[in-house]
Amino acid sequence: MAKEVGKVTPWEVSGAIDYDRLVKDFGVQKIDDALLKRIGKHTKDVHFMLRRNVFFAHRDLKWILDEYDKGNKFYLYTGRAPSGPIHIGHIQPWLFTKWLQDTFGVELWFQFPDEEKFLFKQNLSWEDGQKYLEENMLDIIALGFDPKKTHFIIDSRHAGLMYQEACKVAKHLTFSMIRGAFGLNEQSNAGMIFYTSMQSVPAFLPSVLKGKEIPCLIPHAIDQDPHFRLTRDILPKLGHYKPASIQCVFLPPLQRTEGKMSASGTSEQAIFLTDTPKEVERKINKYAFSGGRNTLEEHRKLGGNPDVDVSFQYLRMLFEPDDKKLKKIYDDYKSGKLLSGELKKILIEKVNTFLKEHQKKREKAKKDLSKFIYKN
Amino acid sequence: MAKEVGKVTPWEVSGAIDYDRLVKDFGVQKIDDALLKRIGKHTKDVHFMLRRNVFFAHRDLKWILDEYDKGNKFYLYTGRAPSGPIHIGHIQPWLFTKWLQDTFGVELWFQFPDEEKFLFKQNLSWEDGQKYLEENMLDIIALGFDPKKTHFIIDSRHAGLMYQEACKVAKHLTFSMIRGAFGLNEQSNAGMIFYTSMQSVPAFLPSVLKGKEIPCLIPHAIDQDPHFRLTRDILPKLGHYKPASIQCVFLPPLQRTEGKMSASGTSEQAIFLTDTPKEVERKINKYAFSGGRNTLEEHRKLGGNPDVDVSFQYLRMLFEPDDKKLKKIYDDYKSGKLLSGELKKILIEKVNTFLKEHQKKREKAKKDLSKFIYKN
Repeated sequence: MAKEVGKVTPWEVSGAIDYDRLVKDFGVQKIDDALLKRIGKHTKDVHFMLRRNVFFAHRDLKWILDEYDKGNKFYLYTGRAPSGPIHIGHIQPWLFTKWLQDTFGVELWFQFPDEEKFLFKQNLSWEDGQKYLEENMLDIIALGFDPKKTHFIIDSRHAGLMYQEACKVAKHLTFSMIRGAFGLNEQSNAGMIFYTSMQSVPAFLPSVLKGKEIPCLIPHAIDQDPHFRLTRDILPKLGHYKPASIQCVFLPPLQRTEGKMSASGTSEQAIFLTDTPKEVERKINKYAFSGGRNTLEEHRKLGGNPDVDVSFQYLRMLFEPDDKKLKKIYDDYKSGKLLSGELKKILIEKVNTFLKEHQKKREKAKKDLSKFIYKN
Repeated sequence: MAKEVGKVTPWEVSGAIDYDRLVKDFGVQKIDDALLKRIGKHTKDVHFMLRRNVFFAHRDLKWILDEYDKGNKFYLYTGRAPSGPIHIGHIQPWLFTKWLQDTFGVELWFQFPDEEKFLFKQNLSWEDGQKYLEENMLDIIALGFDPKKTHFIIDSRHAGLMYQEACKVAKHLTFSMIRGAFGLNEQSNAGMIFYTSMQSVPAFLPSVLKGKEIPCLIPHAIDQDPHFRLTRDILPKLGHYKPASIQCVFLPPLQRTEGKMSASGTSEQAIFLTDTPKEVERKINKYAFSGGRNTLEEHRKLGGNPDVDVSFQYLRMLFEPDDKKLKKIYDDYKSGKLLSGELKKILIEKVNTFLKEHQKKREKAKKDLSKFIYKN
C-alpha cells in the first residue's frame, strides 16, 4: 500500500507525515552519525532528542559549529504564536532549545508573534489572542531559560524595532514567492502576506542591534521551515548571514501515532501544561492510542507494538531521557511482559511529576515576566 | 479631439488629468455652492483654495460639519512619505490643512510613512529615505501648525502603536482588493501589499487612544483616494467611523499646465522650499510654461491665456489669496497689458517672499522638532 503523504504548512499539519519526503521537499539535511559525533565533541552528552532522531534535520548546523569553534558564538531563535494554551507538543522544541542554551552558553531570542494567529484564524479576535500571550510567556519562563540570556520580543509591542526591519525583508518578498511557499491565494489578507517578513526579523535583529553579524540557529518543528527558507534566501541580500536551523518531528496527538498535537482541535487530543493530575490520568487512559493486543492473553503471548503506541512515543520523545530505562520499557512491552495499562501508568506518573514541578515554576514565573521582555 | 485621460494612482500621476472623470471613477462628491455656503457659516472667510476649486471634492464633509455643530469635533489627518525635498506642490494641501486647524481649532495627526517610498522605489535605500524624514518634518513645522494640537507619527518609530492596528485592518484587506485598487500584481512585494493598512491607521488611532470615536477629516491630493476608499470600507467593520476627506487637484510642474509637480523627476520641474531666490528666478524664467504669445506685438494685440499659464496657475492655486488682485492679473494678462515676463516677475516675488520667511521659520523649527513628535 502506498504511504499516504500528509500536508505540512506552518498553519496546517494533516495526514500521516512522511518525514523523508519532507526532507527532500523542503531541502533540509538529515542529521547523520558524523554530525552527531561532531555535536558530541562540544557537549558532555548528546541530547536524547538528537540521539533518537526527534531532532532529525538541519540547515547549516556544521557552519554554526565551525563558527563556534572559531570563537564566533551563535544565538538561538525560536518562538510561539499565542492563540491557546500550551500543550506538551509545544514544549518539545523549547526543552531542546533550553539544552542548547545551557550547553553552549548562548543568548536566546524568543519571538511571540501575537498577530500571526489573529491574521490566519478568521474567528480569533485580537483580544482573545492577547489573553494567551501572557499565559504562554509564563509557561515558557517556567521551562527554565536563563533570564540573563533570554529576550522575549512581542511583535505588536516591539514593532517599533521590528517593523522597519520587516519592511527591508518584505521589499524582496513578492506575492508570487509567498504564494509558492505557503499556498496563499488572492483572497489571502494583506497581513498574512506580510507576516513572513515579521517572522524573519529575529533571525537578524540581534546583529542589527549589536552592529555586527552573529550566527543564528533556529530550533523549530519542521512545519515552520517554509518561513525560514524564504528568510534564508533574502538575508544575504541585506548583508546578513543566512540563519541555520534544526528541525524536529511533531509530537503526535493522543489518538494517533502520526500527525501533530494541536491546541486548536478538541482539548481531548492534547495534554496541556495546566491540566490537573486527574485530567492527565483520564486523558491518557481514555485516549492514548495503544499498541497493545485486544486481550490480556493475546498481549502476554504475542506482545505489544511500542512503535505505534502513543504512550511509548511520548516517553521516547519527551519524558524518558534515560536510554536504558526506555529500552527496558520497549523490550518489556514488545515481549508482552508490560501491559498497556502499565505502560500508560508509567507515562502518567512521568507527566504528572513534570507538570507538578512545572506548575510551581509557572507560579513563580509571574514575578519574573518583566525580566524576560526585551527593553528597547 | 478626445481628451487624453491621465493615470492617477498614489504612486504615479501622468498625462492630462480629467478631474471630472476622477470624481466619477473614484466616487467622490464635488464641492458645490451649497456646501461652500455651509462651510462659510463656520468660518469668517472661505479659504481661496475652496473658492477657486483647488479643493474640489470630498467624502462626507457634510457629516463632519453636522457633527461639529453637535459639539463632536473632528480631527485632521494628513501625511508625507519622505523620499526627497519638499516642493511647493506638496505644501498646497498642508497650507489648507493649517487653515482648517486654525479655523476649527482642531487636532492634527500628521503621518510620516517612512517605509512607503522605500517599498515602492526599487532604488531607494532605507538610509536615503531616512535622510529626508527630518528635513521634511522641519518644512512642515515651518508652515506654522499648532505644536499643542499637532502630532507627528512616523511609521517606523511609532510601529509599536500602529502595527497591531494595521493588522486589524489588514485582516479585512485581501490581495485581490488591493490589486483592484492600485493595479499591483504578483511581483509586487509584501510591504507594498501591506502598506495601505499602515496608511489607514491614523484615520482611527486617535479614537483608539482616547477610547471614544472622533470624526476624522483627511485633506489630501486626489491621488491618495484609493487608500482611503479601502479604509472607509473597512473601518466600520472594526467599530470605527468612516473617515471623511477633502481632495485637491495637483499643482502642475513648471513645464506643463497639467500633471503633478514631482520631486522624483528632474529638479528643474519643481520649486523646492530650500531653493535660493536666484534658483527660483532662474527656474520660473526659464521653464514656467507661458500662456503668452510668440512676439511682444502679438501679445499686446491679442493678449495671453492665463488659463494655461503656469505662473498664473501658481498664483491662483497658492500664492495670491486676494481675489481682486488675482482678477486684475488675469484681466491684464488676457488683455495683453501684462506681459509674460511681468507675470513671471509677480510670481517670482511672491515665491521668494514666501520662501525667505519659510526658510527662517525652518531654521527655528529645529528646536521645536521634539515637541511635534507624538510621545507614546
